[in-house]
Amino acid sequence: MKTDDSPPDGPQPLRLREIQQEVDRYISQFKEGYWPPLAMLARLTEEVGELAREFNHRFGAKPKRVDEEETDLGLEMGDILFILVCMANAQGIDLEESFRRVLSKYGTRDRDRWTKKD
Amino acid sequence: MKTDDSPPDGPQPLRLREIQQEVDRYISQFKEGYWPPLAMLARLTEEVGELAREFNHRFGAKPKRVDEEETDLGLEMGDILFILVCMANAQGIDLEESFRRVLSKYGTRDRDRWTKKD
Amino acid sequence: MKTDDSPPDGPQPLRLREIQQEVDRYISQFKEGYWPPLAMLARLTEEVGELAREFNHRFGAKPKRVDEEETDLGLEMGDILFILVCMANAQGIDLEESFRRVLSKYGTRDRDRWTKKD
Amino acid sequence: MKTDDSPPDGPQPLRLREIQQEVDRYISQFKEGYWPPLAMLARLTEEVGELAREFNHRFGAKPKRVDEEETDLGLEMGDILFILVCMANAQGIDLEESFRRVLSKYGTRDRDRWTKKD
Repeated sequence: MKTDDSPPDGPQPLRLREIQQEVDRYISQFKEGYWPPLAMLARLTEEVGELAREFNHRFGAKPKRVDEEETDLGLEMGDILFILVCMANAQGIDLEESFRRVLSKYGTRDRDRWTKKD
Repeated sequence: MKTDDSPPDGPQPLRLREIQQEVDRYISQFKEGYWPPLAMLARLTEEVGELAREFNHRFGAKPKRVDEEETDLGLEMGDILFILVCMANAQGIDLEESFRRVLSKYGTRDRDRWTKKD
Repeated sequence: MKTDDSPPDGPQPLRLREIQQEVDRYISQFKEGYWPPLAMLARLTEEVGELAREFNHRFGAKPKRVDEEETDLGLEMGDILFILVCMANAQGIDLEESFRRVLSKYGTRDRDRWTKKD
Repeated sequence: MKTDDSPPDGPQPLRLREIQQEVDRYISQFKEGYWPPLAMLARLTEEVGELAREFNHRFGAKPKRVDEEETDLGLEMGDILFILVCMANAQGIDLEESFRRVLSKYGTRDRDRWTKKD
């Protein structure tokens, strides 16, 4: 029985753990393996910077120069996800478990920080 | 039939799309909804900064002060994932599709950038 | 003859080069000297993250929790300046010269990017 | 009487306050004036990302692609200084005073964090 998420002829929706495995498979092709931690962090900083540029172009105050082509928001976010997964993999961290703990933390700690709808 | 990923008594492994839905459900509780784009970006910058501090403590050169307690690497990464998912949701971006495109980009563009194993 | 910038009984206004020297003097006290480049970068990322948190509190959408005390914007910016000067010193870069080149770049490259006043 | 810092035929060494004034003069040419705070923060994030890329190329693990030309470390740092000064100016912050307070904070708080030379 198919759901809305799984079109009959498209790829199966990926679990977060499968994404971590996919990245591990990709990285394992290379002799270098995962970069050292601070190099991965620098890459994350770089990718967040690229998203910042694009966000400023679209939602902020920085007008585009003519020679700057439109970039792809989804791809910038995908780059961030990719390097984040690399960092998690290299540290043996299960991001799904991290996500559950974050949700649970937000559910308690920040409970009164925003205004609940009526 | 169960797989290695789905323990009989634990929660089902989450698909990335379910994570996006989960975050949307969480945010939808609040009148404010998603923050404006540049405010979400500032939050991402903040969370990456917290991971940077922790990485420097563990893998870099910054010694911890006695009054700085050990933080939780998985939780820091979960915070980054959470705000990234918020940004994707607010822009209507399917992170799984982004991830597939990134993998495909890396498979072609950077093919010769590293050394393949024999 | 005194100027507006130099109060008779306050400290003399610092040249950027003197600030670089001051930082070098500070760092030279310690056996460790300047951190490795990627560790200094991680520290910069951390400090920018702290400024991001404060900016989001003041100008963005993130409400403060009661247990988060007001921080000091000037001190956050000073932290960024300090680590930037460390990075420049470690690379033998004269920030004043860098600044002049940036001003000159902005004067030409971005000349038509904004609207000149009449 | 000239010092080592002020060559007879070069420009006079700049005080940090003069740099803040210079930036203010530059920005005042434009109708837009300083950007909104979160847009300046996004620009800072972008510039730090560019420095991160360059640091990873030089000191980290990310090999350059052939089509990526060598960039200019001093200019990247100058870009960060420029936007930091913009943020300070827009908030009425005297960076020299901030710098003095940071030095004094480091002199006390972190006194025993590193190893003093004998």
